[in-house]
Amino acid sequence: MRLIILIATLVMAAPALADPLPSWRDGEAKSRIVDFVQQVTQPGSADFVIAGDRIAVFDNDGTLWAEQPIYAQLAFAIDRLKAMADEDPSVLTSDVLRAAAEGDLAAVAASGEEGLLEIVNTTHAGRPVAAFQDEVRAWFDTAKHPETGMAYDAMLYQPMLELLRYLRDEGFATYIVSGGGLHFLRSFADEAYNIPAENVVGTTGNASYEVVDGVPMIEKQAGIAFVDDKAGKPVAIDTRIGKRPIFAAGNSDGDFQMLEWTTSGGGARLGLIVHHTDAEREWAYDRDSPVGRLDRGLDEAEARGWILVDMAKDWARVWPQAQ
Amino acid sequence: MRLIILIATLVMAAPALADPLPSWRDGEAKSRIVDFVQQVTQPGSADFVIAGDRIAVFDNDGTLWAEQPIYAQLAFAIDRLKAMADEDPSVLTSDVLRAAAEGDLAAVAASGEEGLLEIVNTTHAGRPVAAFQDEVRAWFDTAKHPETGMAYDAMLYQPMLELLRYLRDEGFATYIVSGGGLHFLRSFADEAYNIPAENVVGTTGNASYEVVDGVPMIEKQAGIAFVDDKAGKPVAIDTRIGKRPIFAAGNSDGDFQMLEWTTSGGGARLGLIVHHTDAEREWAYDRDSPVGRLDRGLDEAEARGWILVDMAKDWARVWPQAQ
Repeated sequence: MRLIILIATLVMAAPALADPLPSWRDGEAKSRIVDFVQQVTQPGSADFVIAGDRIAVFDNDGTLWAEQPIYAQLAFAIDRLKAMADEDPSVLTSDVLRAAAEGDLAAVAASGEEGLLEIVNTTHAGRPVAAFQDEVRAWFDTAKHPETGMAYDAMLYQPMLELLRYLRDEGFATYIVSGGGLHFLRSFADEAYNIPAENVVGTTGNASYEVVDGVPMIEKQAGIAFVDDKAGKPVAIDTRIGKRPIFAAGNSDGDFQMLEWTTSGGGARLGLIVHHTDAEREWAYDRDSPVGRLDRGLDEAEARGWILVDMAKDWARVWPQAQ
Repeated sequence: MRLIILIATLVMAAPALADPLPSWRDGEAKSRIVDFVQQVTQPGSADFVIAGDRIAVFDNDGTLWAEQPIYAQLAFAIDRLKAMADEDPSVLTSDVLRAAAEGDLAAVAASGEEGLLEIVNTTHAGRPVAAFQDEVRAWFDTAKHPETGMAYDAMLYQPMLELLRYLRDEGFATYIVSGGGLHFLRSFADEAYNIPAENVVGTTGNASYEVVDGVPMIEKQAGIAFVDDKAGKPVAIDTRIGKRPIFAAGNSDGDFQMLEWTTSGGGARLGLIVHHTDAEREWAYDRDSPVGRLDRGLDEAEARGWILVDMAKDWARVWPQAQ
């Protein structure tokens, strides 16, 4: 009897549930997220989804953290190329590598995918995965964003961190599905987002397993095994997760097929696009941006029922730390 | 006070823990498994590993279920090819396809990897993943093993089912890392082993994402994107899991590098090889078997500290159901 009273007291004394998304201003975006989560998690709901099938996928660049003026991974690659060239200038074997080492971003951009691949091969390949990830972590400790002066891994979006945590608290598994490099992503995803290595999906370079002087190692090799962008995203979701997500968040047309695949399944589904409308606190860009171009998604979001998050309007706060 | 007494009573009344591996006979194999699990799970132990890093990887064919006289997936492919040829004989466009449709396993074996790939392409590619997996499930419902008369998915190893459950109960994440096809494996892994789709790693065919008549679908395509065998296994573990396992189980030289990679890490590690020594209850084979060949592993297991499970001696029972 006393035990029952004790339990009853505990239950009655429980405070009202705190707002899980305090950095989201009240409005349609926030209320649709909360409604969706309730729909799929309340037992007895027509759209109830068992915990093992509550898969939520997130793009990274421009969705979970900033991507302007260039992807953080490209900034890392350029910094690393400069350091390599300082030690041995003969690594700069082509015009695009010389341009990158001089910080000529226009020339890098003009070199297209082929040029980018050359920069990535030169700066990423040829060493063990573990050593590569240590280098990336060391870079995050010192590199500063050229415009904000912040550390790159401090430029996370606080509202999206809250969304990740909220979904996990409600039994979702959260995954990154990014066009960025798999090993680059893993070097910070666990610390930044509480997303462990096995839940990171990204563009994957070739790799080898070899025993060198009796020590087995997995080494990054030149060349790309899989590009996790556009139609590659649903394919990678199938290969890596094997379940169709019920929630997807992105910010560019590179995420279009991932949102399309996610939201065309049966039952309750939710797609969300972060629209960069906030030139004051972050950047404002969409159709004309070479980085994170959002064109088709902007045209079709409403008809497809995807939430178009207006960063300036919907987010009370952008960064985790006050600037 | 009464609450404390109640809790104390509950704790004292707890029964002695049941044997987690009842189908394993007492002996070195069983005791080394239990010792290892205690080492890595007891807080304060020098070899304690946090739950998120307790990664256990299992080969499938010959490790979790039977693989003689031919892999179940090949039996499926041949049955499917026969059904396709019954409907339209013109699908048999080559000698190896005609041999397979006639059940000439010697000719299929003689055709090598190229022949197998042709059979797989013909029987697996060109349709949506979901439809393919439905077909595999329907096949399991009717197909019988040619020698035992059992359903293929009843020929699981009871001791390994107990090991999977034991490890999961102790906070391990259990993965399949198999040379078998990813989608084939996923069609039964959850039901057979409680291993969900996202924890299945296998050989991966090409796939496409397309919107057909307004319906997005992921379709299997001809050609192999990744062979998950030998040195491919540690590479796939890196790509898919991103953490070095602390436990690995296999049965053939195709698992050698996976065990090598797993057990050469720091701290407590365990490698286990199922040695097929039981001609009476299962099959006896190793160095000379075309399927599940175990040669180097047999030579090096002892020096590397890997458990060599003697199926006839170490397993009190082989199959889940009495035969």
